[in-house]
Amino acid sequence: MTPTYVSKLVRSDVHQASQRIAAYVHRTPVLTSSTLNDLVGLELYFKCENFQRSGAFKMRGATNAVLQLSKAERETGVVTHSSGNHGAALALAGSLSDVPVWVVVPEDAPSFKRQAIKRYGATLVNCGPTLEDREVVAQQVGCETGATFIPPYNDERIVAGQGTAALEFIETVADLDEVWVPIGGGGLASGCVVALQGSGVRVCGAEPELADDAYRSLALQTLQPALPPTTIADGLRTALGSITFGILSAYGLEIRLVSETAIVAAQKLIYERLKIVVEPSSTVPLAALLDRKLDQVGERTDGVSRVGVILTGGNLEFNSR
Amino acid sequence: MTPTYVSKLVRSDVHQASQRIAAYVHRTPVLTSSTLNDLVGLELYFKCENFQRSGAFKMRGATNAVLQLSKAERETGVVTHSSGNHGAALALAGSLSDVPVWVVVPEDAPSFKRQAIKRYGATLVNCGPTLEDREVVAQQVGCETGATFIPPYNDERIVAGQGTAALEFIETVADLDEVWVPIGGGGLASGCVVALQGSGVRVCGAEPELADDAYRSLALQTLQPALPPTTIADGLRTALGSITFGILSAYGLEIRLVSETAIVAAQKLIYERLKIVVEPSSTVPLAALLDRKLDQVGERTDGVSRVGVILTGGNLEFNSR
Repeated sequence: MTPTYVSKLVRSDVHQASQRIAAYVHRTPVLTSSTLNDLVGLELYFKCENFQRSGAFKMRGATNAVLQLSKAERETGVVTHSSGNHGAALALAGSLSDVPVWVVVPEDAPSFKRQAIKRYGATLVNCGPTLEDREVVAQQVGCETGATFIPPYNDERIVAGQGTAALEFIETVADLDEVWVPIGGGGLASGCVVALQGSGVRVCGAEPELADDAYRSLALQTLQPALPPTTIADGLRTALGSITFGILSAYGLEIRLVSETAIVAAQKLIYERLKIVVEPSSTVPLAALLDRKLDQVGERTDGVSRVGVILTGGNLEFNSR
Repeated sequence: MTPTYVSKLVRSDVHQASQRIAAYVHRTPVLTSSTLNDLVGLELYFKCENFQRSGAFKMRGATNAVLQLSKAERETGVVTHSSGNHGAALALAGSLSDVPVWVVVPEDAPSFKRQAIKRYGATLVNCGPTLEDREVVAQQVGCETGATFIPPYNDERIVAGQGTAALEFIETVADLDEVWVPIGGGGLASGCVVALQGSGVRVCGAEPELADDAYRSLALQTLQPALPPTTIADGLRTALGSITFGILSAYGLEIRLVSETAIVAAQKLIYERLKIVVEPSSTVPLAALLDRKLDQVGERTDGVSRVGVILTGGNLEFNSR
């Protein structure tokens, strides 16, 4: 599929989303580390969406979608399928607005993730392991309950909601040259592209080599399917959707691919230097920046000095060692 | 030894320390979590000294000591023995003031800790594994170089410096009923006692059952030696010193003991709910609060609702799993 979807989202949609969700989400802090700055040779600013409610930026989009439901839709509720952060975010967003939520979760999803969805008060519905299983069961739940389907990323309300992270970022840190995000379904990257229209701040993507479907989709100008889920950056195993592919393709997003080794090295740096808990997915942009630093000869980084990184989430299970 | 040392430290010493070190240390953030509040049945406030420079509150005392050296002492430098955070803190504090630092480190200390001390520019001196080995070598270094010995906790400059954490805490969060700290050498607890004189905020201590020397010292009114280093809360394996014993004894500090299981459970909660990296030592007060909640019948917690916890440090090595 070549990119045929032309999004009508504009910056003011993100501004409106930001006002809409303000009472329901945290304005997350921005951290810095002189050690990391020295390593990368840049002034780095880390926006900590791991401290966001539900533990991930997904709370922004889910809240923006829930708050735009009609009165009737609020009463019948919403449904999604997710083994991860979108399910937990929708569960919490629904709970805060008294909207019933069903989350379809593969039977093999970690109990840690299932517990989070339940803790926020959603009804968990089991399904088989494939994407098709999930979609079929979500549709069944929708038919039986009348619940409205809220997709994890391929939805303009979701994209506008995720973009509020970028809006807050440039309100907090002036004169950023770039904002880096990891690429999974492309919802956050698309939201950033829309939010930063006309700001002069460039959006840059980072993706694991083992889940390079977005990189290839943009290079080939044809949507590529998700790859087998082998990368440790489990939040990035999904493929782009028609809306996010359209937005990122029109923008000409540049994506830098990183190895699994680089992801783990970046995770170690964030753990030891920033002292915060983030999911492997969150560390992919720092891995890309370290990699670009090594390759700097011949790369166009002229004039780039102030770089923002969105740390997307922190829902990890603790294992004592 | 019965407590014979009577400290002359007063609250204004902590205020002066706070002004003295302000340009060299971070004013650390305070985090909250509604999930943790619900669990413990209190409003909890976590002061994040894991985000402090050098990764621990130890930076406060070390800086306060270094900044009070005479011009001649600054030139000859300072020496300490430490396998942990005090060594790294003194290394950084010295480096920021152009004071040479020697840190005597047991040969079996983790390379992670050794690297931190070196990274901050100190000279590492190896010694054998016992406390006596450390003291002998530190004295040798002092004789050879003329360096002034800066103890890790049994020193009024160090105690006053550590107390600045409590001062900041009550400036940031009004109407705290209690401030909880873990007890190792007692430097932080003593600093809090002095800093909170006349404030109406009670200082409470928490100690691992496997390192309960301070608990027994205060109960027996006789300084007890450190126990074999078996607790996972490795920062708390040291015994009180004459100065800290005197201060905590005069205050009548109450210490709650916690099991290793409770320490790990609290560590899991801080990791998964607050999404931050803290050392096991830092989690001991939360373990004590959870334990008190379970025992609440018969405990005097009347009127206690707003409770501060100082998370003392975050110097952990990342292990990918």
